[in-house]
Amino acid sequence: MNAFAQRMERAVAQAAAEGLGGLLITPGPDLVYFTGYQPTAITERLTLLVLAEGRDPHLLVPILERPDAEAADGSAAVTLLDWKDGDDPYPVAAGLLAPDGRYCISDSAWSMHLLGLQQALPQTRYTSMTSSLPMLRAVKSDDEVALLAAAGAAADAAYERILGVRFAGRTETEIGNDLADLLREYGHSQVDFTVVGSGPNGANPHHEMGDRVLQDGDMVVLDFGGLKDGYGSDTTRTVHIGPPTAVEQEVFDVVRAAQQAAFEAVRPGVACEDIDATARQLITEAGYGEQFIHRVGHGIGMTTHEPPYLVRGEKRPLVPGMCFSIEPGIYLSGRFGVRIEDIVTVTETGGRRLNNTDHGMQIVS
Amino acid sequence: MNAFAQRMERAVAQAAAEGLGGLLITPGPDLVYFTGYQPTAITERLTLLVLAEGRDPHLLVPILERPDAEAADGSAAVTLLDWKDGDDPYPVAAGLLAPDGRYCISDSAWSMHLLGLQQALPQTRYTSMTSSLPMLRAVKSDDEVALLAAAGAAADAAYERILGVRFAGRTETEIGNDLADLLREYGHSQVDFTVVGSGPNGANPHHEMGDRVLQDGDMVVLDFGGLKDGYGSDTTRTVHIGPPTAVEQEVFDVVRAAQQAAFEAVRPGVACEDIDATARQLITEAGYGEQFIHRVGHGIGMTTHEPPYLVRGEKRPLVPGMCFSIEPGIYLSGRFGVRIEDIVTVTETGGRRLNNTDHGMQIVS
Repeated sequence: MNAFAQRMERAVAQAAAEGLGGLLITPGPDLVYFTGYQPTAITERLTLLVLAEGRDPHLLVPILERPDAEAADGSAAVTLLDWKDGDDPYPVAAGLLAPDGRYCISDSAWSMHLLGLQQALPQTRYTSMTSSLPMLRAVKSDDEVALLAAAGAAADAAYERILGVRFAGRTETEIGNDLADLLREYGHSQVDFTVVGSGPNGANPHHEMGDRVLQDGDMVVLDFGGLKDGYGSDTTRTVHIGPPTAVEQEVFDVVRAAQQAAFEAVRPGVACEDIDATARQLITEAGYGEQFIHRVGHGIGMTTHEPPYLVRGEKRPLVPGMCFSIEPGIYLSGRFGVRIEDIVTVTETGGRRLNNTDHGMQIVS
Repeated sequence: MNAFAQRMERAVAQAAAEGLGGLLITPGPDLVYFTGYQPTAITERLTLLVLAEGRDPHLLVPILERPDAEAADGSAAVTLLDWKDGDDPYPVAAGLLAPDGRYCISDSAWSMHLLGLQQALPQTRYTSMTSSLPMLRAVKSDDEVALLAAAGAAADAAYERILGVRFAGRTETEIGNDLADLLREYGHSQVDFTVVGSGPNGANPHHEMGDRVLQDGDMVVLDFGGLKDGYGSDTTRTVHIGPPTAVEQEVFDVVRAAQQAAFEAVRPGVACEDIDATARQLITEAGYGEQFIHRVGHGIGMTTHEPPYLVRGEKRPLVPGMCFSIEPGIYLSGRFGVRIEDIVTVTETGGRRLNNTDHGMQIVS
């Protein structure tokens, strides 16, 4: 049995253990995980993989996508069905489901498709993948960890190189483009984000980049990542143009200590939320708790955001093979921000960083 | 009242006319249309615009996205609310809805969000935007038509230039990269697809491009587009390397005639499906009906696929300002394909093409 078939079989068993009749998988990372198939675009045309107990996997595709679906690595393990423009695909899909079945469906499945299924089979019930089977793709195989490590090493190489470029006098967008070029140079097929948050812009954690010209005295948050060989990178370092002020150094040191403490708390069996709490407690004790406005981390794999989420309320335990970010930050509105982020994988005894550049505040020019 | 507020008000009135209590808008083209706000990424964190009769528009965002949401052009017309990692956003969103309300929701809204709302308010009911308000964004303003025309002109310029490059001896991917570079050169901020379907690959309508080396005697389908200033382009021409065979010319002429006939059928009041039928009848009479395996066209605007769909069963009438593709094709498995596609806008008296390059079979080298 090939790897795709094994994954499908394991998923059906996990779903059954949760009282589900099966899984409904739509284009995106779930479908790639199970079949290797990635349609050119995710659209209004229904593409649906049905994994159900006691029957072979079926993949329903628009007829004009059939050749691409047939060419996918994992398609030997599924039965292909197609539908044509002008026909209603939902009754066809409904024929693959139990009329009163309970299914989990890919988080990012378009609502129009879920509503189409709910209308075709009013007695069926649905839950999201994240609420029912959050750990479906969360525990990575050794091969997957190796791919994530390679993506992390590429991001690290890009960071080392960016330290050598000129910052002052150039715009955030110019620095961001440099980062994107470097990620591609080091093997990324896709760049998902290049945050360059300089000075006050650094206080907006999701500021990407803009026309602001960097200047001497700026703190600069650099958060960048994408996909290399199908697996994600995501790392953040905060650098400074010229020497920092005392308060900048203080805030930086708090974030650095919080990131280190959270990393050291990683080991199998610890609850996800405890990693968040470890960083948060340290930042709160330093007086910046209200300025740490996001969870400490998120899983990473074929996407850059996926379970496990390291967030208050997530009581599931860490398991060897899980991979996620640890990225505490402090954001001082109108002034500056600091964030330090590594991807970490859970080992049998603790955690291993997949980003390994220096955590100290690098001074750039 | 600004344009965003006008759009929101009109949408609420349209929803009420359909018996809906309001609209639920998630990140993507709908949200840009109503607020100008486009989050960096569409993720598992809930972002939701609620447009409901008798109350002001409310936009719920993750707190770390709030600065970007506040900076959006249309945010003056909405009340911003935020939620924090670790809290459950669905009860917060539910507070903006009537407990027994009926809402339409953006087609591409993640199922996990819809399921979260359904769970928080079990008596609410939902329909997809396309099933309830398909024509919400379908009729474009003059400004929008002008932007689509500019995107079309840019794609036309790219096509004129690609005719001068070398085809034979190069791979599909090389030609596709040329096309992407040209689209960007002519002002596209985003390239969504560059289909280069050479020889037998042309018979797969959604073949993008690959390692196949083009050779003398190939028919080559070129289908490309993306976004320029926020509006889409999408055009297809089929070229030939060296002189075509008699059957290639015959198939080409059928597609060309079908495209022309469908274009000439465009005028206000004609049903969408009739445009499809016009092209299909001509292709069927020529003996290739089974090889025309997709609808004749789709709407275009802030996305390259949106209502109106020109497909069997879509009985709604054409209205001045609608913009869509007309793209009949014939696909001969294992041999070659032909498709010709223009974007067309409905005028008071007929149709106007937004792509204007020659429809004749261009011979390339």
